[in-house]
Amino acid sequence: MGKTENPGGDEPVSRPVYFLSDSTGITAETLGNTLLTQFPESNFNRTTVPFITTVEQARSVVDAIDAIAARGLPPIVFSTVVGGDIRMTLAECRATVVDLIGTHIRQLEGALGTAASGKPGQAHGLGNAVRYQARMTAVEYAMEHDDGQSLRALEKAQVILVAPSRCGKTPTTMYLALQHGIFAANFPLIEEDFERDGLPVPLRPFAQKCFGLTSTPQRLSQIRTERRRGSSYASLQQCGYELRSAELLYLAHGIPYLNSASVSVEEMAATILQKMRLKH
Amino acid sequence: MGKTENPGGDEPVSRPVYFLSDSTGITAETLGNTLLTQFPESNFNRTTVPFITTVEQARSVVDAIDAIAARGLPPIVFSTVVGGDIRMTLAECRATVVDLIGTHIRQLEGALGTAASGKPGQAHGLGNAVRYQARMTAVEYAMEHDDGQSLRALEKAQVILVAPSRCGKTPTTMYLALQHGIFAANFPLIEEDFERDGLPVPLRPFAQKCFGLTSTPQRLSQIRTERRRGSSYASLQQCGYELRSAELLYLAHGIPYLNSASVSVEEMAATILQKMRLKH
Repeated sequence: MGKTENPGGDEPVSRPVYFLSDSTGITAETLGNTLLTQFPESNFNRTTVPFITTVEQARSVVDAIDAIAARGLPPIVFSTVVGGDIRMTLAECRATVVDLIGTHIRQLEGALGTAASGKPGQAHGLGNAVRYQARMTAVEYAMEHDDGQSLRALEKAQVILVAPSRCGKTPTTMYLALQHGIFAANFPLIEEDFERDGLPVPLRPFAQKCFGLTSTPQRLSQIRTERRRGSSYASLQQCGYELRSAELLYLAHGIPYLNSASVSVEEMAATILQKMRLKH
Repeated sequence: MGKTENPGGDEPVSRPVYFLSDSTGITAETLGNTLLTQFPESNFNRTTVPFITTVEQARSVVDAIDAIAARGLPPIVFSTVVGGDIRMTLAECRATVVDLIGTHIRQLEGALGTAASGKPGQAHGLGNAVRYQARMTAVEYAMEHDDGQSLRALEKAQVILVAPSRCGKTPTTMYLALQHGIFAANFPLIEEDFERDGLPVPLRPFAQKCFGLTSTPQRLSQIRTERRRGSSYASLQQCGYELRSAELLYLAHGIPYLNSASVSVEEMAATILQKMRLKH
């Protein structure tokens, strides 16, 4: 029955939360967690149960939830189950059931003037095969073009992330590829690049596609220290020098950039898509 | 004003859809798209507008939506904006506004017995710094341990994906790392592995952590053909041989496995988390 985070967590008021789905559970987790961030004072003990596709499975989930409810605080359930029988079964559990699909579907039926299909969610299935294959090809491209490993086919990149080492290029590139099917390469700026005039040679034909990352010397030094404690590479002075030089390079060449020190890869990706006007 | 997919698409009934957010837009896109999959007959022209954080920005979004509304079908708006002023401004647009936060927040306030914070969504921000850093470390681990590149620190893996070449190991590994912070390695099965007895030597201490992928000979041959057309590597016969041998290996060593031929990385990841009982 699903994965439980912090099982047996014995905070006195840890509220049990279930994400129930007839598919992957991604949508239930995403909106459920967004709603829970509105209650930062509360503790939650989260369990995801994906692939609930029969009434029998739904019954055993209800039994498990009821058993938890009998032991303490009434659980909160976020459900994206579509099918009527399974939904009705789940609705019987002794918990607050937030029905993320059912609540909105009538409004959409009204707006679109058609009935919902009632089929289990396919939002995270293969869906459009061409679009799915494009995402997988983008992951391959990002792997091949990570950290300036390959300069082949840079002209195919929709965006090239440029930054000194350890500013967050790799995870942001992976996120853009995997979630949005964006062809993203990344290129490390090293000390020699700052001693020369102009952009590093391989980037010169593609200045328009470049997006820069920067950080704060403190944050960068902290991350580099985890890798190579005590090295000059990780020193505040070296980090400060590289970041200042990188920012000057971005400004000189009209390369948009953002500071990665206190934002997530999701926020960086959303900003890059918006600023570079990338279709996804 | 955001990224428009299929701009100027001239299908007669392409319904404009907006995903509006005071943050990344990920939650609005995720639930919005899940709801739209319930209407497979309709065409949608999607635009995401993230980071709407002032009333002025909201007004310009409303103007843009009203301009689109004046030209054709009334748009559908999915909003996860939290702040009252901005929400009230957005509610004035000439569209069907599906309020993904406001609709559910009262129910949760009742269940939890506290008021919502009303602060913009932080679900995709840095959040818990320790947890975020764990995800970034997991991405690094997955990059280093892709395709059996490094056998160092395999004992740190929470799961090792095992499969013949091109069954989907790499994107699934990246997804597990990036979305769930799972330490995932992957290891390619090659012909010599099938000629020897037992598991490949590097995997022997870690059989309990292995999860196998397989495919259909047709699908695998199609994917390999895109890489190396006409090679024996891509032949139906070779693909069939490798997949049969891999499945026998999984069965012989009690390694759970799934067929990747018609499922997405999201579905594979959800199945792996569930079957391997991985905390995320």
